[in-house]
Amino acid sequence: MSFNSFGQSFRVTTFGESHGPAIGGVVDGCPPGIAFRLEEIQAALDRRRPGQSRFTTQRREPDEVKVLSGVLPGEDGLLTTTGTPVAFLIENVDQRSKDYSAISESYRPGHADYAYDVKYGLRDHRGGGRSSARETAVRVAAGALAMKVLPGVTVRGALVQMGDIHIDRASWNWDEIGNNPFFCPDAQAAARMADYLDGIRKSGSSVGAVIEVVADGVPPGLGAPIYGKLDADLAAAFMSINAVKGVEIGEGFASAALTGEDNADEMRMGNDGKPIFLANHAGGILGGISTGQPVVARFAVKPTSSILTPRKTVTRYGEDAEILTKGRHDPCVGIRAVPVGEAMMACVLADHVLRARAQVAVPPAWPFARPEA
Amino acid sequence: MSFNSFGQSFRVTTFGESHGPAIGGVVDGCPPGIAFRLEEIQAALDRRRPGQSRFTTQRREPDEVKVLSGVLPGEDGLLTTTGTPVAFLIENVDQRSKDYSAISESYRPGHADYAYDVKYGLRDHRGGGRSSARETAVRVAAGALAMKVLPGVTVRGALVQMGDIHIDRASWNWDEIGNNPFFCPDAQAAARMADYLDGIRKSGSSVGAVIEVVADGVPPGLGAPIYGKLDADLAAAFMSINAVKGVEIGEGFASAALTGEDNADEMRMGNDGKPIFLANHAGGILGGISTGQPVVARFAVKPTSSILTPRKTVTRYGEDAEILTKGRHDPCVGIRAVPVGEAMMACVLADHVLRARAQVAVPPAWPFARPEA
Amino acid sequence: MSFNSFGQSFRVTTFGESHGPAIGGVVDGCPPGIAFRLEEIQAALDRRRPGQSRFTTQRREPDEVKVLSGVLPGEDGLLTTTGTPVAFLIENVDQRSKDYSAISESYRPGHADYAYDVKYGLRDHRGGGRSSARETAVRVAAGALAMKVLPGVTVRGALVQMGDIHIDRASWNWDEIGNNPFFCPDAQAAARMADYLDGIRKSGSSVGAVIEVVADGVPPGLGAPIYGKLDADLAAAFMSINAVKGVEIGEGFASAALTGEDNADEMRMGNDGKPIFLANHAGGILGGISTGQPVVARFAVKPTSSILTPRKTVTRYGEDAEILTKGRHDPCVGIRAVPVGEAMMACVLADHVLRARAQVAVPPAWPFARPEA
Amino acid sequence: MSFNSFGQSFRVTTFGESHGPAIGGVVDGCPPGIAFRLEEIQAALDRRRPGQSRFTTQRREPDEVKVLSGVLPGEDGLLTTTGTPVAFLIENVDQRSKDYSAISESYRPGHADYAYDVKYGLRDHRGGGRSSARETAVRVAAGALAMKVLPGVTVRGALVQMGDIHIDRASWNWDEIGNNPFFCPDAQAAARMADYLDGIRKSGSSVGAVIEVVADGVPPGLGAPIYGKLDADLAAAFMSINAVKGVEIGEGFASAALTGEDNADEMRMGNDGKPIFLANHAGGILGGISTGQPVVARFAVKPTSSILTPRKTVTRYGEDAEILTKGRHDPCVGIRAVPVGEAMMACVLADHVLRARAQVAVPPAWPFARPEA
Repeated sequence: MSFNSFGQSFRVTTFGESHGPAIGGVVDGCPPGIAFRLEEIQAALDRRRPGQSRFTTQRREPDEVKVLSGVLPGEDGLLTTTGTPVAFLIENVDQRSKDYSAISESYRPGHADYAYDVKYGLRDHRGGGRSSARETAVRVAAGALAMKVLPGVTVRGALVQMGDIHIDRASWNWDEIGNNPFFCPDAQAAARMADYLDGIRKSGSSVGAVIEVVADGVPPGLGAPIYGKLDADLAAAFMSINAVKGVEIGEGFASAALTGEDNADEMRMGNDGKPIFLANHAGGILGGISTGQPVVARFAVKPTSSILTPRKTVTRYGEDAEILTKGRHDPCVGIRAVPVGEAMMACVLADHVLRARAQVAVPPAWPFARPEA
Repeated sequence: MSFNSFGQSFRVTTFGESHGPAIGGVVDGCPPGIAFRLEEIQAALDRRRPGQSRFTTQRREPDEVKVLSGVLPGEDGLLTTTGTPVAFLIENVDQRSKDYSAISESYRPGHADYAYDVKYGLRDHRGGGRSSARETAVRVAAGALAMKVLPGVTVRGALVQMGDIHIDRASWNWDEIGNNPFFCPDAQAAARMADYLDGIRKSGSSVGAVIEVVADGVPPGLGAPIYGKLDADLAAAFMSINAVKGVEIGEGFASAALTGEDNADEMRMGNDGKPIFLANHAGGILGGISTGQPVVARFAVKPTSSILTPRKTVTRYGEDAEILTKGRHDPCVGIRAVPVGEAMMACVLADHVLRARAQVAVPPAWPFARPEA
Repeated sequence: MSFNSFGQSFRVTTFGESHGPAIGGVVDGCPPGIAFRLEEIQAALDRRRPGQSRFTTQRREPDEVKVLSGVLPGEDGLLTTTGTPVAFLIENVDQRSKDYSAISESYRPGHADYAYDVKYGLRDHRGGGRSSARETAVRVAAGALAMKVLPGVTVRGALVQMGDIHIDRASWNWDEIGNNPFFCPDAQAAARMADYLDGIRKSGSSVGAVIEVVADGVPPGLGAPIYGKLDADLAAAFMSINAVKGVEIGEGFASAALTGEDNADEMRMGNDGKPIFLANHAGGILGGISTGQPVVARFAVKPTSSILTPRKTVTRYGEDAEILTKGRHDPCVGIRAVPVGEAMMACVLADHVLRARAQVAVPPAWPFARPEA
Repeated sequence: MSFNSFGQSFRVTTFGESHGPAIGGVVDGCPPGIAFRLEEIQAALDRRRPGQSRFTTQRREPDEVKVLSGVLPGEDGLLTTTGTPVAFLIENVDQRSKDYSAISESYRPGHADYAYDVKYGLRDHRGGGRSSARETAVRVAAGALAMKVLPGVTVRGALVQMGDIHIDRASWNWDEIGNNPFFCPDAQAAARMADYLDGIRKSGSSVGAVIEVVADGVPPGLGAPIYGKLDADLAAAFMSINAVKGVEIGEGFASAALTGEDNADEMRMGNDGKPIFLANHAGGILGGISTGQPVVARFAVKPTSSILTPRKTVTRYGEDAEILTKGRHDPCVGIRAVPVGEAMMACVLADHVLRARAQVAVPPAWPFARPEA
């Protein structure tokens, strides 16, 4: 009954609050002999780091990650996992707790403040405490390590909707992701998003977004039929990211309007002895198990709940009140959710690679030989 | 690393295939002293049972449930839980395995056939084996027991979309649910669905659906901030139902287009000393923890993959082939997913009620007294 | 937070009470493609079955096991696992509940009666309910399946002490195990045990025992350094058997009196390229990980608590009382604990074989090549 | 499938190696509102700290613990848990890695070196890496927090045997524990141990020990009948401590020689409306559930495997070799295992207090009212 761990065989446990001395986490189950460099973990963290454009919170956190255990140091900074738990530590630097004193009594609508208080009887109100998105930095570190357990797999995320601005899928270009501050694969949509979000930001408002994460190179056979489903674990993983309210695999909600003929991903044998799917409505997962097609998932992020417009609320002492949330906030938390979504996909896939081995150490060689008559 | 269990404190483990001798399950962690009647479990199963209208599979399964353990029999058929595991058993009666012999070699697009074979090296092709929706009967039995752990809570499901037919929310009437074979809360939409689905059925096609499940009376404080989130567990629970491709909480994907002002569920104190929320965009969950508002979730079900139109596929021996799936199938599996969705909601809520007690046996009395100056 | 499951990757969940309709269990995680016959499971159960000599309870249970799921039936009764959960069912036949009516109010010293009542507020007093050793029949079935996951491994148990009668280790002969009703490897000791136990039995008394379980052919590398220790899991597994009060690995408690020189299991290279240990004080486990030597464990079983001599006790209503336990009981439950101990060893080893694969699918080839200078 | 966590509801995950930068751990599930001071955790660590007498290793580690998360700082250094994970960090200061360079190739008999290498294909040989007893410092920190979850419970450990020196139970005096460097409750035995261990130490040898841990004030009803047994969890917890080879509850192995009459802990009603047990052969646990009597457990610790006398071994390259282990070591690791044993008992009890609540939030009031006729 853990509350702060996810994954079973590649198991990540995190700790830490927004305004405590540090956040961190432990990866249990990482195989031995995995080589990586600290800079690779740091690079992943830098993509999520706040304060990189005017569209994210101005909190200045270097997010410098340390590896405390589970590795043997080698030459040239190469670290090799030993099979023992890998612990990450990231110190909090720029806390400014006093910004939050006004909200210690009144609950912020859209935030977990009331739910926390009524559950625990007390809460760390400083920066949202444990429910701050700051915790996701640890996920990103774990995800960077997870990628090392997934040779041949590429995991990429993209922001595909902000407010009412949808990308044009015909214009999808992964190379554009790094050219705008939104991880948006459509340059034109990104330009519109910049204009739109400037207005949102200046008015102290916020807006939601949809993120798509695609994993290429995923081997078939990951997952299990009933409660060990790859898509169920992805759904839980994405839904566990702050502010996420919906998750889809493949066609997702659009599949409700399809017929069986439309939805069938037909198959043909390819020249390399592997099957080819003629479509990917399934998003790479059938019956909870990966098919070898790209795994495609989306999640919806609600608008940041911290806004400058006063809202009606109540205090922890049962009085009506008004509240507006000062402090430093992202006008669209969906942006920084992109690398977090990638990390969660990587962690879930790494977990299932390891879990699948427990039942079948070496997967069977497909196609099978036809038995003699 | 369980593959066939869900829940932590109200833990359900299921077993059984579509065409084996029986299916069943074990509920571990149910509190002692819970009184129920076998007929109540049976009544829940009867709602899901196949063959009740022309719109569901014509397989004739009585789905007669037995309770094998964990109860003390009392007077008048009353059973009382003892705190030990409650086992359910449902025998399979109407298997007709020969219907499936044609598909033992060729993979059915949209089904898990290929994924299974490439994972395990063998599969029980009879009726889909373990991946048959027949397993969900056990979930419904467990859900009926879970409801007994949730006094004051009502869990109701409704089909809100079939193909392109959406219900009119202004016409929502829970009393209509029992008046049509679709669990549809809008009588007019239900009539259109009947016409539409007759055409689908006669042509051997199929169609998808969206189901909404609402839990009223849920106490605040269920869930946990990070990986023990109530919504993450609901997402996994719904995604683990056969053919589900998307899950939403509250506004879900629509929240991407909202601003922070629109999305804030403002609060005011009610006359009974409890807070009133002026909206429920959150679907009753904030920061992973229930707020005391109704918990509102939706999931999308893809069209049944078994259709009569031939589709291109490959065999397990690596040959191109055509396949059409005879046998008895639901033209819209979304219909019978309604009671299954209710059951999963009940199981997740019961689990979190028990889990929450571990940290806080008796929840704090809100609102709190203001400390003296 | 399961209360009725053990193992992680070869995960066994059991259900059922002594006097309910049936007992059973589910094995989750068994690899696909494991072939076995029902008769093999049955043969294991028959070794544990009551009523086979005058020294065990005269309850007449056929203990006929059924496999409800997880297998594909083949020719000649061969069953092949599919990777889905394997469920076992054993019906209770000879319950005689009325034997137990006298103890519904008074607690039997040495039994869990008081502990149950004060925990749950009610209990199934018939035959001890869930705490009856009858549950161990399911463990034996699971253990027989576990053995199929352990090719090359032999697991054998022996009763090495009954009351004050110790076996002579110099006379240890595994072939004697089947020649006496005690699973005793020393024929002379067995003869003395028979005389002794006849007296115990006729006086309505009971006595304790020590069982040793040895696993040969265990590969090195099973277990993990800290909380995934093979010996910790064995300790929990044995301690979870009814009436067990102590567990030892290798030298066990005797190691307290050894010096480091005596306790060191020195090593030499064997002719086959594998290391040879010159002793096995460690019982085949170092630092929680198997070394490739035989795994040797012992557990102590207290005397059966059901005796015919009246004992002082209290009732559930808080009154002083006297109690003597009629009914059918084993004068030495340690005897039938031998096949249960074997089963637990097999389950733990199978679990660790599968768990080890998750981190390292294919173990490294030892010895390693010396790196070039 | 965690390898580095124990407990379910009070869940402890540890990380770190003997010679890495730090060790630490995360406690997940600790209830909110628990008040403690850092000095209390530090005081527990100081009891285990190395270098406090000539009988423990001369490694100089301050073992200064930091709390990184999960607490709200209050006045006067009081910390209050918030219900979020509590992370501990202890930096390694005095590593001296070069002491271990000689053993990087040759395996030390009695240590996990060979088992590690053959499992993982590599190992951190510096100070034993993860298998160093240094990890137990984190357990002690977690145990000190666990004690705060157990109001009214006292957990005390004592060394009751060293080599062939047994304490005289008639001379047991808890107050003597702090008067000698062995945690020995018998002053005379302690004096003999000092003489004996001086000889052992000077010759570079080592010796084993037996530790007894007693918990007073444990409420009845902790544990569960089958695989959630309190004694099974204690057995696993103690066996997971470095060098432990045996575990007993109550009479333990001596119960094998008892009759049912001797072993029965008879009961009488006390004047306070609670039952009195007339003996405690059970060690406070029956059927896996606490009875309200003191919980009494013992564990055997083998002699330290690092000794100065050369032993035969092999290298990781498959060559015969000799090895003697220089460096700083405890001549009797059993001594410092005393506070570790206390900590494990505290953690297991805290875990079961929280677990018990999940099924029964508020325990029933015993004795029960007799139903009217």
